[in-house]
Amino acid sequence: MRDLSGDAALLSLNTATLGPGRSLKDAVEACLRHGIGGISPWRDKIAEAGLAEARRMIERAGLTVTGVCRGGMFPAADAEGRKQALTENRRAVDEAATLQAACLVLVVGGLPPGSKDIAGARQQVADGLAATLDYARSVGVRLAIEPLHPMYAADRACINTLAQALDLCDRLGAGVGVAVDVYHLWWDPALHAQIARAGRDGRLDAYHVCDWLVPTRDMLTDRGMMGDGVIALKDIRRSVEQAGFVGLCEVEIFSALDWWAKPIDTILETMVERGKTCV
Amino acid sequence: MRDLSGDAALLSLNTATLGPGRSLKDAVEACLRHGIGGISPWRDKIAEAGLAEARRMIERAGLTVTGVCRGGMFPAADAEGRKQALTENRRAVDEAATLQAACLVLVVGGLPPGSKDIAGARQQVADGLAATLDYARSVGVRLAIEPLHPMYAADRACINTLAQALDLCDRLGAGVGVAVDVYHLWWDPALHAQIARAGRDGRLDAYHVCDWLVPTRDMLTDRGMMGDGVIALKDIRRSVEQAGFVGLCEVEIFSALDWWAKPIDTILETMVERGKTCV
Repeated sequence: MRDLSGDAALLSLNTATLGPGRSLKDAVEACLRHGIGGISPWRDKIAEAGLAEARRMIERAGLTVTGVCRGGMFPAADAEGRKQALTENRRAVDEAATLQAACLVLVVGGLPPGSKDIAGARQQVADGLAATLDYARSVGVRLAIEPLHPMYAADRACINTLAQALDLCDRLGAGVGVAVDVYHLWWDPALHAQIARAGRDGRLDAYHVCDWLVPTRDMLTDRGMMGDGVIALKDIRRSVEQAGFVGLCEVEIFSALDWWAKPIDTILETMVERGKTCV
Repeated sequence: MRDLSGDAALLSLNTATLGPGRSLKDAVEACLRHGIGGISPWRDKIAEAGLAEARRMIERAGLTVTGVCRGGMFPAADAEGRKQALTENRRAVDEAATLQAACLVLVVGGLPPGSKDIAGARQQVADGLAATLDYARSVGVRLAIEPLHPMYAADRACINTLAQALDLCDRLGAGVGVAVDVYHLWWDPALHAQIARAGRDGRLDAYHVCDWLVPTRDMLTDRGMMGDGVIALKDIRRSVEQAGFVGLCEVEIFSALDWWAKPIDTILETMVERGKTCV
């Protein structure tokens, strides 16, 4: 297991951790100030900065791009909606290529409006992924399916366990893997076995950390800073690294109720300290 | 698949559906007024009425007791806490026996305070269940493990899928089964296969219905009335009945934000109408 206690070079900052009001420039500069080794930008922040400028900023700062967030959202109520999703996913792939990201993270989407057919939604995800994967392979971008917590199955992602994501990867073949986010997966009794499977198959493309708070006051934006919740973070990182993961630990904390209201340097100081002691 | 469209005889009212302010007497009388065939009382309502009086009321009304809610909550920070949990579970078994309930429903408990050891909590659950099962067998009460949604893994139940519950049943042997609640399990890609497994093993002890709302505004008390959410209820009931379930469909809706504020007869009229059309 790697030693993270010395510095923050093996941490990556997901821009969502700073909250909606901060720019990509804010995030890049904060990474430099705090010795953080990588960044994972959301697409709205890339658009705000402009893709070319985003690339320049990140390159100049020497940051590893651990992912671009996010593609996906494949299911739609009609063929036109599904086509639009594919177009949007090609754009996301292009951005990931430009930024030389380790992967494009995919939040696959939930039920189309009015639908109760989760099996059908899953089939739409498989179809959308297959189409996007053809293109991603052609430009050398890896796709990383992020299984989301089952509480998001209806409205955000109908891929909800690592086993389910890896089964889908098996059907899709090369070029696609998984983003393991402790927030979504910590509860799964099969987690460690499936992490090992992901490693064997060469599909561990990203590792995201935060914590699960008790109580959780909001289903979307009450994630905890590492160490403030109940997730056995070191046990999970041990499994991920034993499975061969050599990438950075990406910190992604949606926290409207707490961290987003704080100054950037307070967030990053805490993130770095917890990275050294809790991750 | 049974025809529910004629009356409410195959529905059971879980007392939680009426909200905290209503008594067991309120619930029993409401069942009679609306032709509902069964009831599933929470233990606080039994205590309020007195166990003997609860039995008299329910017998006089001719209601089937589809379950007693609830035993469980096995994990604790120390041996004394675990012992108290076992004592409390014996009491719950006794109440289920007195009321001739189809089962004692078990919400198994989550992490002990301060713990991040979910595997340890699961072992405590297995140990507590084994001890309680010995007693339950001796008085002829079936235990029904209710796998809870993964969003409750930390604080309510660390058994979170039907497969996990059935694996535990396999270790425990006879006298224990599962309560299948659509709210907790609808998202699981293995749901239908595991329902079939539960049926083959004779472990389908209870079937609970409500609906999953989009958005869900509160993690605990924003369950929907059947038909108001995204769960394919008829598909799940079909699986449950094909697997051999012949019990009543128990309606359990925690809804502080909506239904609990309504008059009892409004809740029950809607429940009966939805039972005929949506379940």
